[in-house]
Amino acid sequence: MPKNVPLNQAYRLLNHGPTVLVSTAYGEQRNVMAAAWNMALDFDPPKIAVVIDKKTYTRELIEASGHFAINVPCRAQASMVVKVGSSSGHELVEKTVGHKFAAFDLPTFSASKIDAPLLEGCVAWLECKLIPEPHIQTTYDLFLAEVVAAHADERVFSNGRWHFEGHDELRTIHHVAGGAFMAIGEAFQAKP
Amino acid sequence: MPKNVPLNQAYRLLNHGPTVLVSTAYGEQRNVMAAAWNMALDFDPPKIAVVIDKKTYTRELIEASGHFAINVPCRAQASMVVKVGSSSGHELVEKTVGHKFAAFDLPTFSASKIDAPLLEGCVAWLECKLIPEPHIQTTYDLFLAEVVAAHADERVFSNGRWHFEGHDELRTIHHVAGGAFMAIGEAFQAKP
Repeated sequence: MPKNVPLNQAYRLLNHGPTVLVSTAYGEQRNVMAAAWNMALDFDPPKIAVVIDKKTYTRELIEASGHFAINVPCRAQASMVVKVGSSSGHELVEKTVGHKFAAFDLPTFSASKIDAPLLEGCVAWLECKLIPEPHIQTTYDLFLAEVVAAHADERVFSNGRWHFEGHDELRTIHHVAGGAFMAIGEAFQAKP
Repeated sequence: MPKNVPLNQAYRLLNHGPTVLVSTAYGEQRNVMAAAWNMALDFDPPKIAVVIDKKTYTRELIEASGHFAINVPCRAQASMVVKVGSSSGHELVEKTVGHKFAAFDLPTFSASKIDAPLLEGCVAWLECKLIPEPHIQTTYDLFLAEVVAAHADERVFSNGRWHFEGHDELRTIHHVAGGAFMAIGEAFQAKP
């Protein structure tokens, strides 16, 4: 289902502001967290920015591996996104429940250029290589990365455009607060 | 119509990823540009991040004044957003057409804490004070700011929640590329 997206179109996967999941791996360790605070940062080579809190396990794994993946989840996955976003990878590991993928039974597949696992059932994936900027990482929890590969579910993204018509369960989700989301809605072309 | 939003809820105005307009003023100069690449950066005091290209007039005015406003436009304004986003403030001024507000007949009202004008007809406004970070401004066109006041149209945002039902023309708009937008869609509560 995931089809390669040309790198110069990768920004279009995030341009409309979806809430995403950040997945990471370092050796046998892995984790996934939710992140509404993400955006595109450049077109080609594509770059992105994402906010990763100091206390997260994800941050440790990113700083160790230098890689992470942005997974764009869909409406069918909203409950999972809340579960992933409100649980601590640190705690699960300390309680020997295992990582979140095992604890929550989240199937993954391999990325093409990085070690981080990609979540099945999402509608887009961006494989990212950290651009180290220690000052803003420390001061603002702000992480920048280059997108080295991108993929999307061709049922809802192809030829550089999202097309969710007839696939309401695959619409991207946009978090407001406390589990309150909006799904992305009607597409239209603005006339200048 | 614009009602104050408590500062600790300001992030909720951007959390769902709308395309925004950045307005600026410095002395008699003023400008407005479109920006899909924006995100919240912190809760309280609220901070935001936005990408502002080097060649923009907006950037000159931000660097001179240290302030800007984020205006969240709605579906009724989509054509205006494209017009604002595809025209150059520099060129308009050079051709003595005047600034974009005059050239495109865009009514504004005064901000409470900064000089930048706020656009009428938008559904939310964040008054921002630049946090100078010269390295990332120069290297990535990335600008950080503290939100010093926030307002929203209470028909569609109150008590910390968006509620667009019955107000389709006031829905926020989410740009993909080339004037192709999606309006924000159905609200739902995810069950963990």
